[in-house]
Amino acid sequence: MADNSIPSFKAADLVIQLSSTLKSKPDVFSFGTVFTDHMLTIEWSATEGWQAPLIKPFGNLSLDPACSSLHYGIQLFEGMKAYRGDDNRLRLFRPMLNMNRMANSSKRACLPAFDQSELLECIRRLVEIDEDWVPHTNSASLYIRPTFISTEPSLGVKKPSSALLYVILCQAGSYFNNEAEALSLWADPKYTRAWKGGTGDCKMGGNYGCALFAQYEAVDYGCQQVLWLYGEDHQITEAGTMNIFLHWINEDGEEELATPPLDGIILPGVTRQSILDLTRKWGEFKVTERYLTMGQLCSALKQQQVKEMFGSGTACMICPIGHIIYQGENLHIPCQDKNSQLTSQIAKELTDIQYGRTPSDWTFLV
Amino acid sequence: MADNSIPSFKAADLVIQLSSTLKSKPDVFSFGTVFTDHMLTIEWSATEGWQAPLIKPFGNLSLDPACSSLHYGIQLFEGMKAYRGDDNRLRLFRPMLNMNRMANSSKRACLPAFDQSELLECIRRLVEIDEDWVPHTNSASLYIRPTFISTEPSLGVKKPSSALLYVILCQAGSYFNNEAEALSLWADPKYTRAWKGGTGDCKMGGNYGCALFAQYEAVDYGCQQVLWLYGEDHQITEAGTMNIFLHWINEDGEEELATPPLDGIILPGVTRQSILDLTRKWGEFKVTERYLTMGQLCSALKQQQVKEMFGSGTACMICPIGHIIYQGENLHIPCQDKNSQLTSQIAKELTDIQYGRTPSDWTFLV
Repeated sequence: MADNSIPSFKAADLVIQLSSTLKSKPDVFSFGTVFTDHMLTIEWSATEGWQAPLIKPFGNLSLDPACSSLHYGIQLFEGMKAYRGDDNRLRLFRPMLNMNRMANSSKRACLPAFDQSELLECIRRLVEIDEDWVPHTNSASLYIRPTFISTEPSLGVKKPSSALLYVILCQAGSYFNNEAEALSLWADPKYTRAWKGGTGDCKMGGNYGCALFAQYEAVDYGCQQVLWLYGEDHQITEAGTMNIFLHWINEDGEEELATPPLDGIILPGVTRQSILDLTRKWGEFKVTERYLTMGQLCSALKQQQVKEMFGSGTACMICPIGHIIYQGENLHIPCQDKNSQLTSQIAKELTDIQYGRTPSDWTFLV
Repeated sequence: MADNSIPSFKAADLVIQLSSTLKSKPDVFSFGTVFTDHMLTIEWSATEGWQAPLIKPFGNLSLDPACSSLHYGIQLFEGMKAYRGDDNRLRLFRPMLNMNRMANSSKRACLPAFDQSELLECIRRLVEIDEDWVPHTNSASLYIRPTFISTEPSLGVKKPSSALLYVILCQAGSYFNNEAEALSLWADPKYTRAWKGGTGDCKMGGNYGCALFAQYEAVDYGCQQVLWLYGEDHQITEAGTMNIFLHWINEDGEEELATPPLDGIILPGVTRQSILDLTRKWGEFKVTERYLTMGQLCSALKQQQVKEMFGSGTACMICPIGHIIYQGENLHIPCQDKNSQLTSQIAKELTDIQYGRTPSDWTFLV
């Protein structure tokens, strides 16, 4: 697996400094607030290249106040999960897709390349060391947050001459619940998440910071998330920080599961790709990467041609959409009835793979 | 000046911890690499509000690895300068414009509001304490970098519950030199700096990180900076991190100084505003905020109607543009001849104010 053409750190060089005291684990999984006992850090500099990877006690970073990750958003991250199966084995889900996306984000952010399989092996070791933190339940998991930041300590807007790749872990409860209320979305073209020629297809920090203000305007309108539109025809692009899917009878009368294509403004989600792969394998309906506009959605809703809509992402997996506020109208999206069992079916098949109930080559054993 | 309606820190509460050792000052002004002896830090939390401002020895920040300034680009900055006049007095240039823009960026980034005049007074005190660092020359200055970051130590994409406002200082040489080679720009619509509904009119970090990749592609084409275009008609928007001006005979045969309007994708530069204010006061030619396309520029160049083009910003003040690579053509822009004395004239008037040779209400004494 190792690609020797890229100068990279090696997992074989890992230095491990175990924590002398271990934290007590929280009773409730409050996402992203309590981290495990250890973290992985790997330093890079233009003069010395990659240093040996280090697993050490979780703790604060010491950063120069001029460092360009804090001034110019030269930063990126990934999100993935480790699941504990009934067999007590720990599994990651298609982690090389995350490694590959992280490499793409690094290139776009002018951060250095690395060997993706070496990083995955370092992450595997980190999860192994903190394995007690992986919940003993099928309804929760350990969230893995690889992060890559510039540590360039100067104010010129330029390629970093030093950087830090680090990975932190925290417990995550299940977002998906058949009983849960479906998502409400606020769709207003006045805010744009991403643009052609920008970084919407990379997991760079700036994509999220610039979205926060709209998120709170959505809340002011009584909604939970923003439905991000694009262009004069109000293309449907993403929902909050999720990819989006429409299950409907399309203009040609065909049953179709559709999601916007990866044209530069859509994040290439691992769950998105897995839903496409899975449903294409089923062969039960047309599965398409295509443009979808609010006009098409409104017209299909009027004709009762919409079966369901849902968001997808690593944090939530699949999240049904219940209604959309758009141009003063509250659009009701069918969900949680007998016509809309697709989300449940996809969720079951994906969790069966993630928790090891279904053998799959998407599984990576820790 | 104080606005008591905004909960804010107060300069009157400043705590000052002087450094016991002082650094030796560098002989050469290498921008943004060597910082002064002290920094200003002001902490905020949702539960306790603003803490007392603190001036303390310059040093590293200790940040939680989960903090959302490092993951979601919840960060912003400002750039301003202190100038030492022949009278040995230190002056800032229109600093309330920076304070106002910083407040706008804070709102957009979901960071808390503050009293702008209180921050200015804290910055004045910091510059006063490190005043020996303000160069004793008319060709250099002290660069002031206010920075505002989220310190929220959790991974949810949400409004920060804690934040840090800090200010660091470094010496800056003069960018403007009549003998200097004029800037070369690379104009390709495949990258976009900012878009309607985004954050291009705020000084948020993500605007810069997402621009870096294009900057190095410009260098590959033998150019120094990117000329950022927008839309299908290839509107001229900014050059590198500068606003842009065109001095020409316009379509109606009028002599005009033009710069793109503040329509949401243009940073409201302090130097940009000052050039507009100054040249409007002169009344020698039409001064307009208007759209300019590459088509209009190419056509005006063919008809020899272009007098000059220049970028403006706090770092460079005014920077003449020498040529633009666009659609395979190398467009020569007139500069540094007798038809293009405008950059020199503007630079002289602005520096005369900045260094106190011309009295002005744009001056703020330290």
